Amino acid sequence: MGKMVYNFSAGPAMLPVEVMQRAQAEFRDFNGLSVSVMELSHRGADYMAVAAQAERDLRELMQIPDNYKVLFLQGGGRGQFAAVALNLMGKNAKADYIVTGQWSRSAVAEAEKVGTVRVLDGFEAGEGPRKLATSWDLDPTAAYVHYCPNETVEGIEYDFIPDTGDVPLVADMSSTILSRPVDVSKFGIIYAGAQKNIGPSGLAVVIVRDDLLDQACPNVPAIMDYAAMAKADSMLNTPPTYAWYLAGLVFQWLKEKGGVEAIGKQNQAKAELLYSYVDTSDFYENRVHSSARSWMNIPFQLKDESLNEVFLKEAKAAGLLALKGHRIVGGMRASVYNAMPIEGVQALVDFMDDFAKRNS
Amino acid sequence: MGKMVYNFSAGPAMLPVEVMQRAQAEFRDFNGLSVSVMELSHRGADYMAVAAQAERDLRELMQIPDNYKVLFLQGGGRGQFAAVALNLMGKNAKADYIVTGQWSRSAVAEAEKVGTVRVLDGFEAGEGPRKLATSWDLDPTAAYVHYCPNETVEGIEYDFIPDTGDVPLVADMSSTILSRPVDVSKFGIIYAGAQKNIGPSGLAVVIVRDDLLDQACPNVPAIMDYAAMAKADSMLNTPPTYAWYLAGLVFQWLKEKGGVEAIGKQNQAKAELLYSYVDTSDFYENRVHSSARSWMNIPFQLKDESLNEVFLKEAKAAGLLALKGHRIVGGMRASVYNAMPIEGVQALVDFMDDFAKRNS
Repeated sequence: MGKMVYNFSAGPAMLPVEVMQRAQAEFRDFNGLSVSVMELSHRGADYMAVAAQAERDLRELMQIPDNYKVLFLQGGGRGQFAAVALNLMGKNAKADYIVTGQWSRSAVAEAEKVGTVRVLDGFEAGEGPRKLATSWDLDPTAAYVHYCPNETVEGIEYDFIPDTGDVPLVADMSSTILSRPVDVSKFGIIYAGAQKNIGPSGLAVVIVRDDLLDQACPNVPAIMDYAAMAKADSMLNTPPTYAWYLAGLVFQWLKEKGGVEAIGKQNQAKAELLYSYVDTSDFYENRVHSSARSWMNIPFQLKDESLNEVFLKEAKAAGLLALKGHRIVGGMRASVYNAMPIEGVQALVDFMDDFAKRNS
Repeated sequence: MGKMVYNFSAGPAMLPVEVMQRAQAEFRDFNGLSVSVMELSHRGADYMAVAAQAERDLRELMQIPDNYKVLFLQGGGRGQFAAVALNLMGKNAKADYIVTGQWSRSAVAEAEKVGTVRVLDGFEAGEGPRKLATSWDLDPTAAYVHYCPNETVEGIEYDFIPDTGDVPLVADMSSTILSRPVDVSKFGIIYAGAQKNIGPSGLAVVIVRDDLLDQACPNVPAIMDYAAMAKADSMLNTPPTYAWYLAGLVFQWLKEKGGVEAIGKQNQAKAELLYSYVDTSDFYENRVHSSARSWMNIPFQLKDESLNEVFLKEAKAAGLLALKGHRIVGGMRASVYNAMPIEGVQALVDFMDDFAKRNS
C-alpha cells in the first residue's frame, strides 16, 4: 500500500478503510465459494442473502417503517429525477420543486419532461448569504413536493424537514443519507445515489411509501418502475450486484460504528472543526449562511484566488486529495462524508493553517 | 484462495482470472494513488484516462467505424430495451421486432410503451427444432428492426446478420458481444449488458451510428438520452466507474489473447466439444436446431429428468457451478463466455460422461 492520504472527493467518494480491506481480502473468494461476489448469479441463494442482509441493515440503521419499500436500482440520482416524476405524475401531473442549488435545479429539468413543475425559491429574500426558507406558497393539490436536503455543489444543508402538509415530500438525499438521524415517516420518497455515503457509483437507493406505488405513468420504463421493482425485490433486471454488496458492507460498518446517531455526532464535530477554523481565518472564507451550512460538503475560498493552483498542488503533495471546488462555485471544497475520519479534517486544517502562514 | 472451480453462470458470469487477480492487487491502490479506482472522481484526469482507454480498446477490438459513438451507460440490457425505443421513435413511432426467445420478447414489451411494434417470428415454420428464418415481411418504413443475436435462455444464436435493407438494424448483443468477429457497419445500434462478456453487472455498452442521434422522443430521461450522453462522453451523470474500469481490464485481456478472431476460434472449439459430446450421448440431449446453436449458452437436458437434482449436486461438489437451466427451458445450461477456458468445458464433459456411466 502507498502513503497515508485523505480523499475529499465529492463523489465517487472515499469508502471506509475497513470496508475496502474486507472487500479486497474476499475479492476472488466470497464465503469460501472460490468465486467473486460479482461472479454470482443474482438469482442464487448466496447472492440473495447478501442483497437481503443489506436491506435489513439499512432498514435498521434508518428505522424505516414497514409501510416503506426499499429499492436498489441503477441510474444514480439523475435517473431518479426522472423516475420520481414518472412514478408519481401518472394521475396528477403537477408538482412543486423547491430549488436551492445545482442538484434541485437539475431535478426540475427531468420532471418537466413528465408534467407541470412549479419552481419555488428555497431561500428567504435578501442579499449575500441567505437563510433557507421555512415556508412556501405550496400547491395543496400537487402530486408531491421535491427538495434536496443537501446541495453537494454549494454546500447547503437543511437542518429541518420542510412541512408540506398532506402533500408527499420527496427528498434527494444523495449526499446526506445516513449522515445523521432522519425521521423517514415524514417523507413520501427518499432517494440517493450511492457514491457518497453508501458505496460506489452505479447504484441508487430508493425508499418509497407503499401508498405512492399506484400512480405511475403508464409508459414508465421497467427499470424505473418502482411498483414493478418492489414486487421483484429490485431484481426485475440484473441489479448492480457488486455495488449492492459493497453498500451492504458499508451498512455493517456503520452499525459497528454505532449507527447514524453516533456518526452524526462525529460528522458535526468534523464540520465544526473546519468551519470554525475558516471563520476565524483572514485567509479563507465560507459564503454560506451559518444556518444552512452542510456537514458533508464544505466549500471554502482563498481570499487571494491567485493562490488556488499552488494550494491544490501543495495539498495533493501533502496527501490531501480532490479539494478543488465545483466550477460553479470555484475555490475549494472538502467533502467529508461518513468515511472521512476526523483525523483527515484535522490534517486539512493543519495544512490550511500552515499554508496561510506561509502565504500571508 | 479456495479450490479450482469452473463457474457456468449465465450472468453475472465469471470474469477472466487474470483480470480478477489484477483488480484485486490494485483494489485499494490504483496507479500508486493510494486510493481505489472506485474512489476517484469521474471528472479527474486519472479516471478519465481509464474511461478513454477502455473506449479505445473496445473500438480496436470490434473495429468500430468512426461514425459510431460508444456509450457506457447504466440500466443493463432491459434499460436499453426502453432507451432504444425512446431514442429512435421520436419521429417515426413504429418498429419491427424479430422474436426468437425470452430476451427479444422482453424487448418488445418496453418498445410497446413508446410506439407501435410489429412482432415477427424469428423461426421458419415447422415442428420440433426449427431453423432461424432468413427473411421476413419487413416494413420498409419502420424506424428500425430489432433482434437478439444470442438468446441466453434458449441457447439460440445467429451465425448471420439479418438483411434489413435501408432500415437500421438494432441488436441486443448482451451475451454474444466480443465472442466472435462482427461487422459493426451492418448495424444501426449494438447494445449489451456487461455481465456476460464485458464485466460485472450494472453497466451497458451502446454502439450507435451518428445519424441515428437526431430522432429521440422529446421526453427521454437524461440517463437514456444517447445524443446527450454522446456529447458528454457518457458522463452526463456519474457513470458506474468501477464497472467501466473492469470492462477496460477485460478489453485489455482480450487484446492480449489475440482479439475477437482468436477468442472466436476458441469459443467455437469449446462449443463443439460440448455439443458433440451431447449429440453422441444417449443420456443427454440439446433441443436447438443445429444451425441455430449458441456458442455462449448451451442448454442440455438429462433424458431422465428425475436425476436433475443429483446431477446439480454432484456437479457442484466437483467444482462445476451454476449449471441449472433457466426455469423456462428446464434441465441444465452451461454458459461458456469468453472467460471460460476450454479446460472448464473439458472438465464438464468428463463429469457428464462419468455421471452418465454411473447412472445408466
